[in-house]
Amino acid sequence: MLGLFFGAMNMTSLLNPRDVQFLLYEYLDCEALLQRPRYGEHSREIFDATIDTARQIAEAKLAPHSSKGDANEPQFDGKTVTLIPETHEAWAAIAGAGFHNAHWDFDEGGLQMPEVILRAAISYFYSANVASSSYSFLTIGAANLLRSFGTPAQKARYLGPMGDGRFAGTMALTEPGQGSALGDIKTSAELQPDGSYRLFGQKMFISGGDQSITENIVHMVLARIKGAPPGVRGISLFLVPKVLVNEDGTLGARNDVALAGLLHKMGWRNTTSTVLSFGEKGGAVGTLLGEAGKGLAHMFQMMNEARIGVGLCAASIAYRGYMLSLEYARERPQGRLPSCRDPHSAQIKLVEHADIRRMLLAQKVYAEGSLALCLYGASLQEDLHTHPDAASRAEAARLLDLLTPVMKSWSARYGCVANDSAIQILGGSGYIREYPLEQLYRDQRLNPIHEGAEAIHGIDLLGRKVVMDNGAAYKLFRNLVAASVAQAAADPALACLTKNFAIPLARLDEVTLKLGALLASDPDRALANATIYLDVFGRVVAAWIWLRQAQAAQAGTNRDASSADFYRGKLQAARYAIDWDLPATAPQFDLLMAADDTAFAMRNDWF
Amino acid sequence: MLGLFFGAMNMTSLLNPRDVQFLLYEYLDCEALLQRPRYGEHSREIFDATIDTARQIAEAKLAPHSSKGDANEPQFDGKTVTLIPETHEAWAAIAGAGFHNAHWDFDEGGLQMPEVILRAAISYFYSANVASSSYSFLTIGAANLLRSFGTPAQKARYLGPMGDGRFAGTMALTEPGQGSALGDIKTSAELQPDGSYRLFGQKMFISGGDQSITENIVHMVLARIKGAPPGVRGISLFLVPKVLVNEDGTLGARNDVALAGLLHKMGWRNTTSTVLSFGEKGGAVGTLLGEAGKGLAHMFQMMNEARIGVGLCAASIAYRGYMLSLEYARERPQGRLPSCRDPHSAQIKLVEHADIRRMLLAQKVYAEGSLALCLYGASLQEDLHTHPDAASRAEAARLLDLLTPVMKSWSARYGCVANDSAIQILGGSGYIREYPLEQLYRDQRLNPIHEGAEAIHGIDLLGRKVVMDNGAAYKLFRNLVAASVAQAAADPALACLTKNFAIPLARLDEVTLKLGALLASDPDRALANATIYLDVFGRVVAAWIWLRQAQAAQAGTNRDASSADFYRGKLQAARYAIDWDLPATAPQFDLLMAADDTAFAMRNDWF
Repeated sequence: MLGLFFGAMNMTSLLNPRDVQFLLYEYLDCEALLQRPRYGEHSREIFDATIDTARQIAEAKLAPHSSKGDANEPQFDGKTVTLIPETHEAWAAIAGAGFHNAHWDFDEGGLQMPEVILRAAISYFYSANVASSSYSFLTIGAANLLRSFGTPAQKARYLGPMGDGRFAGTMALTEPGQGSALGDIKTSAELQPDGSYRLFGQKMFISGGDQSITENIVHMVLARIKGAPPGVRGISLFLVPKVLVNEDGTLGARNDVALAGLLHKMGWRNTTSTVLSFGEKGGAVGTLLGEAGKGLAHMFQMMNEARIGVGLCAASIAYRGYMLSLEYARERPQGRLPSCRDPHSAQIKLVEHADIRRMLLAQKVYAEGSLALCLYGASLQEDLHTHPDAASRAEAARLLDLLTPVMKSWSARYGCVANDSAIQILGGSGYIREYPLEQLYRDQRLNPIHEGAEAIHGIDLLGRKVVMDNGAAYKLFRNLVAASVAQAAADPALACLTKNFAIPLARLDEVTLKLGALLASDPDRALANATIYLDVFGRVVAAWIWLRQAQAAQAGTNRDASSADFYRGKLQAARYAIDWDLPATAPQFDLLMAADDTAFAMRNDWF
Repeated sequence: MLGLFFGAMNMTSLLNPRDVQFLLYEYLDCEALLQRPRYGEHSREIFDATIDTARQIAEAKLAPHSSKGDANEPQFDGKTVTLIPETHEAWAAIAGAGFHNAHWDFDEGGLQMPEVILRAAISYFYSANVASSSYSFLTIGAANLLRSFGTPAQKARYLGPMGDGRFAGTMALTEPGQGSALGDIKTSAELQPDGSYRLFGQKMFISGGDQSITENIVHMVLARIKGAPPGVRGISLFLVPKVLVNEDGTLGARNDVALAGLLHKMGWRNTTSTVLSFGEKGGAVGTLLGEAGKGLAHMFQMMNEARIGVGLCAASIAYRGYMLSLEYARERPQGRLPSCRDPHSAQIKLVEHADIRRMLLAQKVYAEGSLALCLYGASLQEDLHTHPDAASRAEAARLLDLLTPVMKSWSARYGCVANDSAIQILGGSGYIREYPLEQLYRDQRLNPIHEGAEAIHGIDLLGRKVVMDNGAAYKLFRNLVAASVAQAAADPALACLTKNFAIPLARLDEVTLKLGALLASDPDRALANATIYLDVFGRVVAAWIWLRQAQAAQAGTNRDASSADFYRGKLQAARYAIDWDLPATAPQFDLLMAADDTAFAMRNDWF
């Protein structure tokens, strides 16, 4: 009966395919990858077909049940977890099309697909339905960990089924009593005579920790071997399957890993969030993955991958909100311009109002900008592994280290801002479940929390990343930015976009030097405003990413007249990122330079 | 089974009673009201008892079912709307304690309670359960409209039952096709020979538009009398009851107002949001309220009241998030300071981390600050009606006009920021429904939308309020701020809080003058960044409100040693508002002064 009020939104507006092409082949130069030996058998057509397959799966198998999965979250009857059947079909489609292992080498059973192409493809899944696609997200990460650190026997038993979709994977880090402080985890592991371990303890907030989609789940578990020292040095990584696997690959008995219960999230509802009990009945069988005592270092591979992945999730959710609110703003008549006083005149479309355009433009900056940033991150991951030049590989490693906290946290933070604007454009309709915007807002809110809450990344960036190796990564990054700015300044069409860079860059240097020095003498004070540092750093990175997109757009303008409007949009969005968001760093730099102690000096008793 | 993970949060942490006392008697001087003739029979004890009664009702009748009402939203079976029974009990408790009519005159059946005391009292309801208390919120506003514009016959029939809780009230403005542009509403009214009207049309997003709590609902409906001109001048206000009322006050036949359906909101779920059809069966019987053609002007009384009310809702929801996250941060052990490298050492409490304190302090600034701002607004409403001096009444009217968009929008916007921080402090626990923070975040998100989306208030402030009467209200406001700054600057203990005011105040003058002038020649361009203007104006107002709180706190410090910690907290929060949030206006002023056209110049085709 109410259906008539809710114009059918085009549920297939996911990412803008023209933009994906732009990001991969104009802003990044993914065609150059074809020169690398690993990709000798590939072609741009294969890359494009991969992305198009992902888009089709996203449209057909993920987007249609996003809202249903939100309204019908997984149920646990004490024995089995039940998900809506569409989740199973989506998983089968994703795994069946090879997206779990396309990036593996041919001899692992993969297609040697470049990291950056796969990440772009998978972003379509996230934009369509982040909750249902997260099972694949986690499985890909867990399988990569196994590929890096597994013994041949472990790989033989688990890798194939994770690739083909029979087994899923998880990362089991957090515990009820410790939250972000991984050094304090208590789950213990006891060595058995046969070389395996028995695990005992509890893990919380484990996404995909149980489900009814796959016949087995491979948990990557951090635990302490009995007698290991406290803190990070005592942590090891274990592979603990939900169901034991026999040597011949057949399934054995149920392992001693029990679902203690499901948690009920604000968004991502179709992703189970679990509390898992290990060893309530004598010990969960696990095998050591990698070296004892190096568990956290090993797990950082998966965490860093997952952090870029969270950045891509954030980008994709922001992107979808942008596309949907843009569509609404173009169709919905509403009011008149302030200059029009004639009540007889027709209403104009929402998109004609300057403030609506501001909110659309901001969304474009955050959605397309974070996608561009995280795909750049994926291209660094790619270079790290396949760049023919050793020095370039080392550079990529440094930049990736430096930018990972920014990719994760800038994308998540401004993804929330973007989805907030999407709701605001729809007004009351944005707030009701009859439209998809409010779900995106709820889904997005997880991203500043999981894979390290924002503060963790601020401390990681300022306390470790910018100072490591005498600031080598920082200097490398700064040189890249300076080079882009110099290059753009020399182009009359782009020079106007470069004038706002000088001051923030100089002040970033100054603040980094000052706080870096303070780190040695008073780390608590130096890191007190690290979250603000993370934000200014993110704004500088985002402005740079947009300058690079503007350069690519300008080059495109000279080449391809049919895309003139698209390129104009990129240039205008760059202007917003550089003229609106970058100068907003000024008061933040003032606080950082003063090592302002307003929050630091606040006392518990004064609240 | 999972209960053990979720420490019972103290669900009775609503507002801080010490702060409510501070705001009413130290920051505002509500005791001085006792000198006014209207309040000759009152005393501070009566004021305090009123507030304490509200607090008790909030704790006993509202807070306990906030989460239940969220999980079990109203159901419509095509005939009747069913709400959880606790909603009925809460309504009965609120109305039964006299909170619908305490502010009415004795001869209307009220208690002549001052507006500001009532508003403070009711804030406890909002903090405990905004969705269930909104029925009273709307009824109070509708009854006030009736008190202002009703004929004796209308009052005789409806006012008493609205006061004692037999009838509820609504405001029925928005229609499916028009959203924020009220000038375009289409609901029509036809005059009948008996002087009554028959209404035809549809209204959407009508909160409380139907429910099973009261035996009748009095809708305040905007409609056009047949033949009226288009636009705002053709709009009249009508009183349309759900059930007709006979002259003797007994209920008659059901009126032709039908519930077309319920909308399903992200938050405020226990408040019905309705689509109402008027006149599907021959015409809904209504009577004209006030003058024909002045409907919007009349309705603005209720809207302005409701805007301050939304500000108070925002303040109260932010406040509750602040209290709950503070409690969590004080109890939860988590990690160590950066300077501590010893993994054997005990974990510290969350509140000991500087970044957690930053988020708590920001919440304190937004929660206590918006409560202080909106109670100041209520004191202006009070002065407008009861100040003995005519010039002061006129001043109060001007300030109230100017500050209403700020009270509504600053409180809503930064209320969202506050509730976002509350989630972040709890990390994963903030994101799950097992804790109350995620609901507050969802509830809060409505506040930047209802009673005029943010852009409406920016245009109202810059396009009308600051320029009206040759900027009289603006000048009045600026003089008050200048006086507070000068006074504080003369106090050695407070002088440090005043240094950051000079530049923003000078630039606010400059920008207001410049954009005010541009309004005449190019209103579209002048108003293109009105939302940014609204934000800087809000930051200046908030900094001023915090300076005034700091002055009161400093005075208190000299008088009351037992509250030393409380006052230190107020002073530190003032520092955050003034040293962190106020200087953030600098880049915004740059954009405004340049009448930056980044968003304005963006074209639809470029997105």
